Parts: sequence; C-alpha cells; structure tokens
Amino acid sequence: MTDHDIAAIEEAVAELRQQVSDLHSELTHYNLVVSTGGNVSGRVPGRDLFVIKPSGVSYDDLAPDNMVVCDLDGNVIPGTKGSQRAPSSDTAAHAYVYRHMPEVGGVVHTHSDYAAAWAARREPIPCVITAMADEFGGPIPVGPFAIIGDDSIGRGIVETLTGHRSRAVLMANHGPFTIGKDAKDAVKAAVMCEDVARTVHIARQGGELVPIPQEAIDSLFDRYQNVYGQPKKEQ
Amino acid sequence: MTDHDIAAIEEAVAELRQQVSDLHSELTHYNLVVSTGGNVSGRVPGRDLFVIKPSGVSYDDLAPDNMVVCDLDGNVIPGTKGSQRAPSSDTAAHAYVYRHMPEVGGVVHTHSDYAAAWAARREPIPCVITAMADEFGGPIPVGPFAIIGDDSIGRGIVETLTGHRSRAVLMANHGPFTIGKDAKDAVKAAVMCEDVARTVHIARQGGELVPIPQEAIDSLFDRYQNVYGQPKKEQ
Amino acid sequence: MTDHDIAAIEEAVAELRQQVSDLHSELTHYNLVVSTGGNVSGRVPGRDLFVIKPSGVSYDDLAPDNMVVCDLDGNVIPGTKGSQRAPSSDTAAHAYVYRHMPEVGGVVHTHSDYAAAWAARREPIPCVITAMADEFGGPIPVGPFAIIGDDSIGRGIVETLTGHRSRAVLMANHGPFTIGKDAKDAVKAAVMCEDVARTVHIARQGGELVPIPQEAIDSLFDRYQNVYGQPKKEQ
Amino acid sequence: MTDHDIAAIEEAVAELRQQVSDLHSELTHYNLVVSTGGNVSGRVPGRDLFVIKPSGVSYDDLAPDNMVVCDLDGNVIPGTKGSQRAPSSDTAAHAYVYRHMPEVGGVVHTHSDYAAAWAARREPIPCVITAMADEFGGPIPVGPFAIIGDDSIGRGIVETLTGHRSRAVLMANHGPFTIGKDAKDAVKAAVMCEDVARTVHIARQGGELVPIPQEAIDSLFDRYQNVYGQPKKEQ
Repeated sequence: MTDHDIAAIEEAVAELRQQVSDLHSELTHYNLVVSTGGNVSGRVPGRDLFVIKPSGVSYDDLAPDNMVVCDLDGNVIPGTKGSQRAPSSDTAAHAYVYRHMPEVGGVVHTHSDYAAAWAARREPIPCVITAMADEFGGPIPVGPFAIIGDDSIGRGIVETLTGHRSRAVLMANHGPFTIGKDAKDAVKAAVMCEDVARTVHIARQGGELVPIPQEAIDSLFDRYQNVYGQPKKEQ
Repeated sequence: MTDHDIAAIEEAVAELRQQVSDLHSELTHYNLVVSTGGNVSGRVPGRDLFVIKPSGVSYDDLAPDNMVVCDLDGNVIPGTKGSQRAPSSDTAAHAYVYRHMPEVGGVVHTHSDYAAAWAARREPIPCVITAMADEFGGPIPVGPFAIIGDDSIGRGIVETLTGHRSRAVLMANHGPFTIGKDAKDAVKAAVMCEDVARTVHIARQGGELVPIPQEAIDSLFDRYQNVYGQPKKEQ
Repeated sequence: MTDHDIAAIEEAVAELRQQVSDLHSELTHYNLVVSTGGNVSGRVPGRDLFVIKPSGVSYDDLAPDNMVVCDLDGNVIPGTKGSQRAPSSDTAAHAYVYRHMPEVGGVVHTHSDYAAAWAARREPIPCVITAMADEFGGPIPVGPFAIIGDDSIGRGIVETLTGHRSRAVLMANHGPFTIGKDAKDAVKAAVMCEDVARTVHIARQGGELVPIPQEAIDSLFDRYQNVYGQPKKEQ
Repeated sequence: MTDHDIAAIEEAVAELRQQVSDLHSELTHYNLVVSTGGNVSGRVPGRDLFVIKPSGVSYDDLAPDNMVVCDLDGNVIPGTKGSQRAPSSDTAAHAYVYRHMPEVGGVVHTHSDYAAAWAARREPIPCVITAMADEFGGPIPVGPFAIIGDDSIGRGIVETLTGHRSRAVLMANHGPFTIGKDAKDAVKAAVMCEDVARTVHIARQGGELVPIPQEAIDSLFDRYQNVYGQPKKEQ
C-alpha cells in the first residue's frame, strides 16, 4: 500500500477513531468492564474496514491514535496509526459480524456481570419490562458455546442475531455481544442489555414474574424504533 | 401567540427551566437512569403549563434552554425555547397527572432497577422500615399495565395515587412514577422509592420480614409530614 | 447566656464543627445515605455539649457553621452558630447516648441498605468473617422497635450496647446506630457495619455459613483493639 | 547499616514505592476495600526486600514516602523512609509468600465483598465463565482458616497456591489473597477475583450453572497466558 493509500485511509477513519476511543468511556462509566476487558468497534463508512480497541491496553491509555484499523478479515492495515499494536483479541468475531451483516455499523463486547450471569446458565432473559420490549423487542437470546481461536464466536453471533429483533446476544458461558447501526448504537445496546439483565434477575429473585402480552411487546418495539427521540433530520 | 406572549411565558418559566434541568442530575447521581431514559417535569406556578425533558437527549446535553414547555394537554408551546424538540415520550402521562391532580407540582419517571423489579412482579412494596413509613406512609402501590400511546398510563397513575398516602406508584411491568408538591419533591420521592425498593428486596431475600404496627406507621407518617426538617418559613 | 459564654463555646467547638461537618462526606462516599437522611454527632471534649447535623439539610449544603450545638438533653444552645436551625430529628437519641454512656464521643445513624435489611427482619448479623471479629468482636445485635418522639430509641441503643463489644446496633425495622470513642470512630463503625452486613448477606444467599470458633473471635478482637494501626503516640 | 547502604536501598526502591503507592488506588476504584482495609506489596527486584502499605493509614494519605520497606522476614529496614511506621498488619503473610515463592513479585490482600462471601462459606468459586478460565485457569481455591499472629496465613497461601493455576486464594472466613509476577499483576488478579466472585454468585442465585468443558478451560488458559495483549518486547 502506498503512502497515499494510507493517508486516504487515515482521513476516512479520523472521526471514527475519536468516536470509538471515546465510546469506551461509556463502558467504564456504567461499570460494564474491569481491567482491560471489553471492546468497541465501528465500521468505516464506505470502506471494507473497521476501527477497534487494541488488545490488553488499559482504559486510561486509550486514545484515537492507538485504535487499530482492520480489514473485514480482521487483518491490521500496515502503516496506519496503531498498526504496531495487536488489535483486540476479539477482532476475529467483530470482523466476522461485519463480513456477514452489512447493516451492522458497530459491535461491542463486554463481560458485564448480570448479562454474564445469565450467560453462565445459558438462559435467555425473558421480556418482562417495557424498556426491554422497547429496546430489544422481546427476550435476549443465548448464543452457542464457542471459544476464541477461529470463527466460531463470530458465527454464533451472526446465526443468533440474523433475523432477530434483539441487538444483543449472550454467548454461552462468556458474555454479551451487541450490534448496532453504528458504534454508538451498539454501546447503547450493551448498556441496556446489562440494565435489563440486572432488573430481570432482581425481579425473579423476589418471586414469579408477570409476562407482558406479546401484542404489547410488538407495539412497544414498533413505536420505539420509529417514533422515539428527536425527528431524524434535526439530530 | 404573539412575541409578547412568548416573552411572558419565558419569563415565567426561566427559573423552572433551570431547576428541572438541574434536577435530572439527581437521577444520574443515584443511578436511577441509564442512557437517555427517565424524565422530570415541573408545573409552572400560576399557569396551565409545565416544563419537561426533551425526548432521547443524553443527560450530559441537558440545559435549561432545551427543556420543553407544554400545556396541560401535552402540546408544545410553539415559539418557546426548546419547542423545535420533541418533549419526553412520557409527556402525555405527565400532562394527564397535572390536569387531574391540581395539588401536584412535579412528576418524575424512571426505570430504576429495584423499583422496576417489583413492578415486573406487579407486587407492592410492603412497609417494613421506618424510612418508608416516614416518606410514603405505608406500602408503595402497583398501578395497572398500560402502554404508551394514549392516556392509559396517566390515568393509571392518577387512579392509583388519588387519595393514597404514597407519592410513588409502580406501573406494572414498567417502572415507578412519582409525584410531589414540586419537581424537587417528586425527585426526592423517586430517590427514596428506589432506596426502599432495594432495602426491602434485600431484606426479604434473607428471610421473613417483621411488619411495622399500623399505628406506628401512622404516627411516623404524620410526624414526617408535619415536623421534619427546618421550620417552613425560614427555608 | 452572655456573649462571653457563647464565644467560649464557639471556641471550644470550632474544630469539632469542622470535623463533624466533614465526616458526613464519608456517609455519602460509601453510599450509606440518600437525600437528607443520616447524621453524625460528636461530643465536645470537657463540656456537656455535642455538635450534630441540622435537620433536613442536603449533604452538599453542610458546613461547619450550620452544625448545631446541643446540651446533653438535646436542647439547642441559643446564640451559637446554627442555632436558628432545627437539629437532626434524631437528636434526642444522640443526647440520650451521650448522657448515659460517658465513654462515647461520637454517634452515627444511617439507613444503609444492607444493615437496614437485617433490621427489617430483626435479625442479628452473625460473625463469620474475620474483619467482623476485628471490628465488632462478634455478632452485631438488634435493638428494640422504637419510634421517634421520646427517649425510647436512645434507651434501646444504650440498653443494647452497654457491656457489648459491638459499637453498632440494628434498631428494629429502622437501621443502624453506631458509637465510637469520637465521631471519626463512630463513622468507621457505620462504614464497617454496612460492609459486613452486605458481605454476610451475600454469603448466606449462597448457602451455609461456616462459623468462626469463639476463641478465634476473641483473639482477633483483642489484637485489633490493642495492636492494629500505628503506635498511638505518633498518630 | 550505614547511610550508604540506606541510600542504595532507597535508590533501588524509589520506583517501586511510587508504583505500590499508586496501585492502592485500584483497590478503591473497584470498591475492593473500605476504610483502611486491604494492602498491596511488591518485591524489590534483585534484593531480598519488599515494599508494603503502612498499617491503619487512610487511602487518601498514602504516598510513596510512607510505604514501608521490609526484609523477607517482615522486619522493617531501619533508617529507610516510612520506617517509623508499622507496616501492614498482614506483613508476615506477605513476607512468607516472598520467602517461599521466588517467582512471586507482588501480593495483594482485600476483604472484597463477593470473594469474602465465598470465603465465609469456605467454598471454591467454580469456573463457569470464560474470563475466569482465561485469568485463573479453573476454580479459585479456598485456603485454611488461620488467624493473624504467626506464619499460618502465609503458609496457607503458599500451600494452596503452589502448583495451582490460580493466582487467587480465598482464605477461609477471611478474604482473598492474590499473587502475581509483580504488584500490578497481583492487583489485576484481585480485581478479577472479585469480578468473577460476583458474576458467579449472581449466576448461581438464578439457577443451575452450566460447566465449561475442561479442555476448553485448558485451551483458554493457555492462550491467555501466551497470546493475549501486546507482544512482550514492545510493552
């Protein structure tokens, strides 16, 4: 790749580097991660590239210039800033998702406590609160048990979430992966996933849950996707 | 509406804009909300208006000038600051409460975890600690299951809280709404509602609760409403 | 009382005003209190007086000059700074303790969640962790159910803690009161009381607790009272 | 010891004083300690010395110069900075570990809530989440019940962890001790120990745990020790 190509890539990813780097602070703010765990990535608009956290670097040391630029096979683009660093050890899973789900613009992975607790039982989170109907449109599903080293985590995410309303999957004995239209949206899904995992856990510890009727879930999900928030053009 | 009318409204709401905007930081301070969830509103003294949070705006971006001014049917007052924004998606419920409960000066809604957990079981919180007797005068009741889109949430709040000592209601499968003599008082009720929801949940996980005798509840509630705090005139 | 008397009192309490005011921030730091709940007091060395938090004032607004000076019957000393304010609604209980336990130099009251949860079941906290043996020398006892309005809370604290190793008592359906050789020591007891209440609650949720042998408890308590920390003279 | 010897020691420990002092803020950041509890130590490279927190000093008052330098019998080195202070009351246990485990460069002790809760039941934490397989290579074991005053705590740590994959041991009815190749690594183990103690506790409260197959645990542990993070030479 020529210096010119690299310069063009850097121009294309400049804003996303900042955004992905900044979004990691949401993970620490909501206590979704400890130590160097967890990672956020974002797809580079119009290119077969994504930007992801480096591996094993402390949250305090993250900065736009140490985010790593990868192609959709998870290979680091040589010559780009941060390319001397290894990307997140979950890079293969992120890459697999971007390769197979073109509508996805952001991916997040954490080991947040309550979501990981459901994952340790391989149990989906039932939809018993309206915030969950709004955000996930029903239960949060469990993905297969898969370990790092090949495409099995990525494949498990894609197989579970394709055609599913939920933007979150609890990978068995592991933790949540979330997707979104962009990195910010995937981070929101990670935050909400832990929040509903906690609320529904606490609720069930106290006794029998009351289900929400399916038509109410459908109606809430539909409204939230289409009506909630500020009119799109002004945002 | 003339420019003169708008100016008069802005003068009437200036202090309340600041207060309602600031009070949202109590919701984040006590971890009652995540992401853009939750909302506070306050009635404009002497006018059929209230001030409420805009929809889907992040807590860090809230400011007096983006609070939205609505009439008691929940319509945004055109020309006022913030009127280019959609008000909170719970505006209809707030408006209904102001329309039907003239003594209410503030309304708060959150999905705080422990209160939402009781709501997911549609179970009232029993009054087993004196702080709850002080603040709520007995159990915190559950309101009906109602979804956004018409007046059913507002009606459920009003029907449940009218004539009730409690300033908090757990809307079924949804979360708490609280009312108060002003917005600050409703925020205090939201904070205390989550606190007692958590304490009583934890207490019951450990075994049998011991009830407080009704006459002690009555006596505590009476004292707290009438004696607690600084003498009224000096505050 | 002459202006001269007042000036002498203010001189005697100046340092304690600062200390008691500052110590309240430990209660918020460790999340032992919400809203305006909780209070710290300290006995004025060499005088039948103590300094206590004003009633219903927010933690952000506490300052040395709004701490209230009371005699050991709980009467505010007229003319002292802060005397235009009502003292904490728990002043009578603090005063009763100072009157009947001359060795006590500080009293703290909170509604901290886990301690209040044990109190709602009127169940003592068993001593199953060494930190609890160190600090409390055995279980944390439960006091009687008593409501505000007369000396019954103070009497319950004194009757329960007199001759007891524990510096904390869980007043039934209410919450913990702690005592100490000074206000700082009582605050430490309040912090540790909630910490062990939480740890032992969590431990028991998971299954059977293993008791610590009594002679080990005795030995730990003895060492902690006499050996722990820096040599006394240099501190 | 001559002034020259002392100066040489101070030069050798200067960086480690700063590091050990700073690392204590990780314990408070992750809420692993309250009040003056908990302690971190680090071995001085190339010397039979270690640096440890002073006893009973508040976390806000820790600084490089009040860290205490000890030999491997736990004796304070006279004349060094901080030598007028008593070292942590757990110094004998740290010293025992350094004496008997030459590969250990850092030791941490806390009473963190969830880990202490497993310890109060004397129950090992089962390995049901991949983060635990990565970090600890299997279950976190329980050590014997031992109280302060002789070498029994140190001996319990060494006997339990020698030849074990886990860098954490839950001392019965007491709390976790963790070891690492240096102080930073031992702090990471303390943070992760509490995190997995919490996640697995929550998971089991909700129902049956699904175990991770042993060969997957082995594979994850091997990868994490050898592949994770940045290439060694560049760090």
